[in-house]
Amino acid sequence: MKKDNFSFEIIKKESKFPARAGVLRTPRGDIPTPVFMPVGTQATVKTMDNRDLLSLDAKIILGNTYHLYVRPGIDVIEGAGGLHKFMNWQRPMLTDSGGYQVFSLAKLRELDSDGVTFNSHFDGKRHRFTPERVIEIQNILGSDIIMPLDECLPYPCEYEKAKESLKLTHDWAKRSLLHHLREDNEKRDKQWLFGIIQGGVYGDLRKESAKFMIESGFKGFSIGGLSVGEPKEHMHSVLEEVIPVLPEDSPRYLMGVGKPEDFFECIERGVDMFDCVLPTRMGRNGTIITHRGKVNLRNAKYTKDYTSPDPLCDCYVCKNHTPSYLRHLFITGEVLGPRLASYHNLHFSLNLVRRIREAILEGRFEELKKEFYEKYEVW
Amino acid sequence: MKKDNFSFEIIKKESKFPARAGVLRTPRGDIPTPVFMPVGTQATVKTMDNRDLLSLDAKIILGNTYHLYVRPGIDVIEGAGGLHKFMNWQRPMLTDSGGYQVFSLAKLRELDSDGVTFNSHFDGKRHRFTPERVIEIQNILGSDIIMPLDECLPYPCEYEKAKESLKLTHDWAKRSLLHHLREDNEKRDKQWLFGIIQGGVYGDLRKESAKFMIESGFKGFSIGGLSVGEPKEHMHSVLEEVIPVLPEDSPRYLMGVGKPEDFFECIERGVDMFDCVLPTRMGRNGTIITHRGKVNLRNAKYTKDYTSPDPLCDCYVCKNHTPSYLRHLFITGEVLGPRLASYHNLHFSLNLVRRIREAILEGRFEELKKEFYEKYEVW
Repeated sequence: MKKDNFSFEIIKKESKFPARAGVLRTPRGDIPTPVFMPVGTQATVKTMDNRDLLSLDAKIILGNTYHLYVRPGIDVIEGAGGLHKFMNWQRPMLTDSGGYQVFSLAKLRELDSDGVTFNSHFDGKRHRFTPERVIEIQNILGSDIIMPLDECLPYPCEYEKAKESLKLTHDWAKRSLLHHLREDNEKRDKQWLFGIIQGGVYGDLRKESAKFMIESGFKGFSIGGLSVGEPKEHMHSVLEEVIPVLPEDSPRYLMGVGKPEDFFECIERGVDMFDCVLPTRMGRNGTIITHRGKVNLRNAKYTKDYTSPDPLCDCYVCKNHTPSYLRHLFITGEVLGPRLASYHNLHFSLNLVRRIREAILEGRFEELKKEFYEKYEVW
Repeated sequence: MKKDNFSFEIIKKESKFPARAGVLRTPRGDIPTPVFMPVGTQATVKTMDNRDLLSLDAKIILGNTYHLYVRPGIDVIEGAGGLHKFMNWQRPMLTDSGGYQVFSLAKLRELDSDGVTFNSHFDGKRHRFTPERVIEIQNILGSDIIMPLDECLPYPCEYEKAKESLKLTHDWAKRSLLHHLREDNEKRDKQWLFGIIQGGVYGDLRKESAKFMIESGFKGFSIGGLSVGEPKEHMHSVLEEVIPVLPEDSPRYLMGVGKPEDFFECIERGVDMFDCVLPTRMGRNGTIITHRGKVNLRNAKYTKDYTSPDPLCDCYVCKNHTPSYLRHLFITGEVLGPRLASYHNLHFSLNLVRRIREAILEGRFEELKKEFYEKYEVW
């Protein structure tokens, strides 16, 4: 892609760790990093409207290619003029390749070296994804940052299987890049295709994968296949293997992470971008993430709690509503409950990453981390 | 109640009809009339947050005493300092008496001259409402306009039964007023108790009921027991019997109405206030009310409709989203669908009544009505 359309600039580096604060520049707007990206699976961040997302100052959101492909269907989004116009979101968007959902949600999956055939989890219809097709789908979606099709392995996965799978993922990555850069692709300069680093929990495979993606010409790097049930130590050790291999001036995106403590641990290890359904999923279930840890609003002890849900949080919900009111909304099944809890959780995640960024800029990352863990109970 | 706490002023009268534009003044704010009041059954207007309601410029919203009494319970709301504080809504609120729900929702109902005993529809617990108790509950809720306990009859209902029931409703209304005006009620000047006119579809009973409420000293009048399945003509004829009896300088509230055409027909006949669950209930089911009639967003014909849901509507939804996107949200079961549809429907109802008010002020009520019906298909 053209240098002037997209770029990544590091503003400040931590002295002790690979942590850094930067800006990812895209035609639809600048994204200060580290950044948390809310997940808008089906062209909507669950329970939020665009005004909510703007008031939360989400700089970029995700869409899931597999879900959008199943419903409403790519033709419907194409007719609208792309995903941004379909949902009327003006800021940057990132889409995944659909690979993760094909390997976790879809039925009767048949994998071959050329692609994967599957039945949709929704209506059982037979579909086929190839690396080229997935690029074309994302070209139509028109998202700003796109991903190549990869094979997503479950945890645990044996070394030989992970090694074998990596060959396929690498082959597909190369084919994806070639296809995205095809002469007649009018989106080639308008979308940034990242490479996805796989290799399970195996350090040498991960390093090999990182090197492969660099050599293939990718300038942005996703780290996939983590947060799939493996112990936290694996995630940290994989980052410690992979990050030093990656060029410093390229953005690093840790897929499907995170929890509040993940932001600290992974930013410390050099990650720039995160996405996770946790804030909205927990919010829908009545749990909020606070500075003291997680809080289940359905708990009877909140029946007459007229304080702030999180006194250290300055979001709309914490400044305007009580645990008593929120509990009532969940107990009575009112839609406003999930919405307010999701709103708070998104604010908490977005804001925590923003605060970490500020701390890096001001050279007090460690201080903030220490201060945070003093109050926070990890769950 | 003290004159300076509450008042009702007529600003402009229609020459041909009893229609009028006025202002209902309350300590929590002025309410231009005619007015549509969104229903916040369980301390939330379903799917809306307070920011939404303010952006819709709802001047007053409803709460349902029966529902709030069942959940979260009056003690929880009392602990918060009243319903306004519980849900953090600063503008005026109106609560009903709970009578309607006791007679339509509750189980094992036993009516006697002193009150009504029932099992909650929610957990089957036994409760008792008397006129005095219902006033006390609303005193605790702290809503700005309150209602006396009345007997709500189903439709159809025989003349003798309606006449018999009216005696009870009148007796309860008197007891309610006495109890609200008790010396030691610190809320007596802070809440306006309306009288509810009943009498089924029988003109003479309705007139008798109106006269009784006037003589008892009520200064605000609700018209209850309509919109319970009777043909529209009955509703109109009841209004034509009752309205001329009522003092001109008192507000008239038609309970549980209405549909867009009801606003025109009933304002024309002299009604000032409306409430109805229709906008939110229809919205949740995927139906929007538009200038051309009702539209079921789930219909397959909207799959690739990239126009405005209602090109004549200037609400956030109609200016920012397409039927194609809204349909997708409903088909995929995304919470944002009901929310956006409810938002539009509330805007439609609030705005239509606001436009009728403006038309009255400018002497062009008939013109607006004609213009509206030309495009609108009644359902």
